[in-house]
Amino acid sequence: MNLNPPQGMRDFYPEDMLFRNYLFDKWREISRIYGFEEFDAPIVESADLFRRKSGEEIDEQIYVFKDKGGRELALRPELTPSLARLILSRIKELHFPLRWFGIVQCFRYERAQKGRKREHYQWNVDIIGEESPIAESEVIAAAVNVMTGLGMTSRDFKVRIGHRGILHDILKYHECEMKYFNQICLALDKRGKIADEAIKEMLKSDGLPESEIQKIFKIMEIRNIEEIESIIDNKSTSLNNLKELFNLLEIYNLKDFIEFDIGIIRGLAYYTGIVFEGFDVERKYRAIFGGGRYNNLLQNLGGKDLPAVGLGFGDVVIKELLEYKNMELKTNAKPDIAIAFLSDNERDFAIKIAELIRKKGISTDLFLKPEKPKKIFSLCNKMKKRFVILIGENEKETGSVTIKDMNSGIQEEVAINDIIKKIAP
Amino acid sequence: MNLNPPQGMRDFYPEDMLFRNYLFDKWREISRIYGFEEFDAPIVESADLFRRKSGEEIDEQIYVFKDKGGRELALRPELTPSLARLILSRIKELHFPLRWFGIVQCFRYERAQKGRKREHYQWNVDIIGEESPIAESEVIAAAVNVMTGLGMTSRDFKVRIGHRGILHDILKYHECEMKYFNQICLALDKRGKIADEAIKEMLKSDGLPESEIQKIFKIMEIRNIEEIESIIDNKSTSLNNLKELFNLLEIYNLKDFIEFDIGIIRGLAYYTGIVFEGFDVERKYRAIFGGGRYNNLLQNLGGKDLPAVGLGFGDVVIKELLEYKNMELKTNAKPDIAIAFLSDNERDFAIKIAELIRKKGISTDLFLKPEKPKKIFSLCNKMKKRFVILIGENEKETGSVTIKDMNSGIQEEVAINDIIKKIAP
Repeated sequence: MNLNPPQGMRDFYPEDMLFRNYLFDKWREISRIYGFEEFDAPIVESADLFRRKSGEEIDEQIYVFKDKGGRELALRPELTPSLARLILSRIKELHFPLRWFGIVQCFRYERAQKGRKREHYQWNVDIIGEESPIAESEVIAAAVNVMTGLGMTSRDFKVRIGHRGILHDILKYHECEMKYFNQICLALDKRGKIADEAIKEMLKSDGLPESEIQKIFKIMEIRNIEEIESIIDNKSTSLNNLKELFNLLEIYNLKDFIEFDIGIIRGLAYYTGIVFEGFDVERKYRAIFGGGRYNNLLQNLGGKDLPAVGLGFGDVVIKELLEYKNMELKTNAKPDIAIAFLSDNERDFAIKIAELIRKKGISTDLFLKPEKPKKIFSLCNKMKKRFVILIGENEKETGSVTIKDMNSGIQEEVAINDIIKKIAP
Repeated sequence: MNLNPPQGMRDFYPEDMLFRNYLFDKWREISRIYGFEEFDAPIVESADLFRRKSGEEIDEQIYVFKDKGGRELALRPELTPSLARLILSRIKELHFPLRWFGIVQCFRYERAQKGRKREHYQWNVDIIGEESPIAESEVIAAAVNVMTGLGMTSRDFKVRIGHRGILHDILKYHECEMKYFNQICLALDKRGKIADEAIKEMLKSDGLPESEIQKIFKIMEIRNIEEIESIIDNKSTSLNNLKELFNLLEIYNLKDFIEFDIGIIRGLAYYTGIVFEGFDVERKYRAIFGGGRYNNLLQNLGGKDLPAVGLGFGDVVIKELLEYKNMELKTNAKPDIAIAFLSDNERDFAIKIAELIRKKGISTDLFLKPEKPKKIFSLCNKMKKRFVILIGENEKETGSVTIKDMNSGIQEEVAINDIIKKIAP
């Protein structure tokens, strides 16, 4: 019997769940604060949903299988197509702009590599039905608030913001050959991840002439919006759009968290305007979160055109980063009680004490058989219990219990009525 | 484009998520109180894990598919085999008895029928490593506490408790032919669900002689433990085991919630002793939850023998029952604020007010463009907002806001510093 999980998939032992729940709670709390409502869709969808256009080949990284009725099903690689389906299906009843979020598991058949997983959990935040970049700013503000809620500051991470339209404008200004647009995007996307020389080689082998490559590297040097203003037409809607977003984010007090980055491209084909990604400042890790505007998705699925902005924030990179930063989990440590008894005669009394404490909502672990004090304390120590309640013959007779504070080591006899006062003052 | 979810799978719109989160929170709260730790395992496991013995055919209700490496994967139909795998994989580091719970989605390829779903969420609670029925009583107490936490009383539901070993003893006493054991179990399981006549027909067509059928119906008349005591040997370990559980549950103050039921069988082959199921008293619905002792599972997976007790509690039947009982969701209604502005000039001021309120942890929806008051109030009414904060030219000038209490309809001007006091006193 192979005891490992399937390749690329994770087991969650209780210590792993502590972090997962801590992160999910933070995602949920910030979503609620920012007025987003939670939704979910099947983890298994019709494979057709993930074919953007009919007849298109399905991405080979998607897990696809057939049910007994011959229907082709897929494990969702992302939530957004399901979001679009749910919206289209109730387009007349829903109120727009609509703010929805989801915390869902997504699957990708990645080639087996160190650190590459085939599933992850992802927080999705979307605003559907608003053209103005205030939609982007609400979504970015939510993501930043999650990060700061996890203890990260503007010295730890930045949101790098780009714009597809501006890239187009700049390429046009430099008279780049637009037939190379995809290769250019790929080059920009690789910047900082692989050496510049390797990018040059890549572009060369794609057939780009040296002159084009030089232009691209010049474009990659652009560091701020002012530089762009000096080269492209001030009437560019894309540029005004981006400038408005930066103004808005200043009103949200997020100036320290944001940077313009011409190299933010995002892999998915459906983004239509502003795109952004959150990175640690050292750039040790892949993007922590990312998103942008996708105004065509609902139309592609056969619905009417609705402007949309979305964000995806996974559970893997943030965990690596928090571990690297040695950030402690600020879990709500509730008093954690163990109740033990020394002989079978005290078992029923111990149950009654356990039930009494549980009625107060306090986490109470009950030993299920008598044990010696030494073993009880050693186990409770390993299991990080806060208090141990010990019940022997003596306690049962006097109607009291012995409580050991596992932090201080102090042990005292406490009357039944005073137990709660002692353990949860 | 088909806008429906795949057959038998559910979409969760925000109103559906309200119930799902309410139920999950209750499950999590009671698990914590009873000292259980949360775990999870991949929703996709190796198909082998669900073949109980090597070479066995896989249940045809399980979704199975191959990955590109040719490995056979399965969408989990239940969590327990994964639980066993995780335990076996760390058997030396874990402390027993171990209390774990999970809240997970499971899949079964049910034939399409009204109300039959192909996925559901399930709360799993397990105690591994304890022989005594105190393990059963802890698990049953947790399930009852979830039910009462949802507002159900002993007049609404009962936990029906049976015992596989006792059934064996009784059949032996009546000299039933044990070669019919499976058919007898099936008959007991069908009791109350289909007419007695239909059960008789079923047994007849299975080849049982009339005399055997009569015995079985006599056994089905047994209503309490005393009747069993009068017919089978008092030295029956199974009987003593069951009597001990009933004594224990009385100490937990659960006497009103439990009943002996010889007909509780549970479909799964792996139960070895006490089995139980929770039913609404009217028996309008299928079992709300169910579980029992399974002492052989870890051994079957190639590990050492460890006694175990488990419970599964799904999200579908309980929802139907609560709806039938007209039980309201007691969700923690937090103040829900909408902020709107009357012209573009007040947008930035509105953003600042929104961020101010959000910093206090209050759920705040921000209108993303100016609207007329009438439209604002009509939308906020539909979206069940508690307070609407309105910002016009006047408010911006005086540095105040207009707050409308959507319950009372009262509208008043409030200084910025007094907003929180007003909406979250």
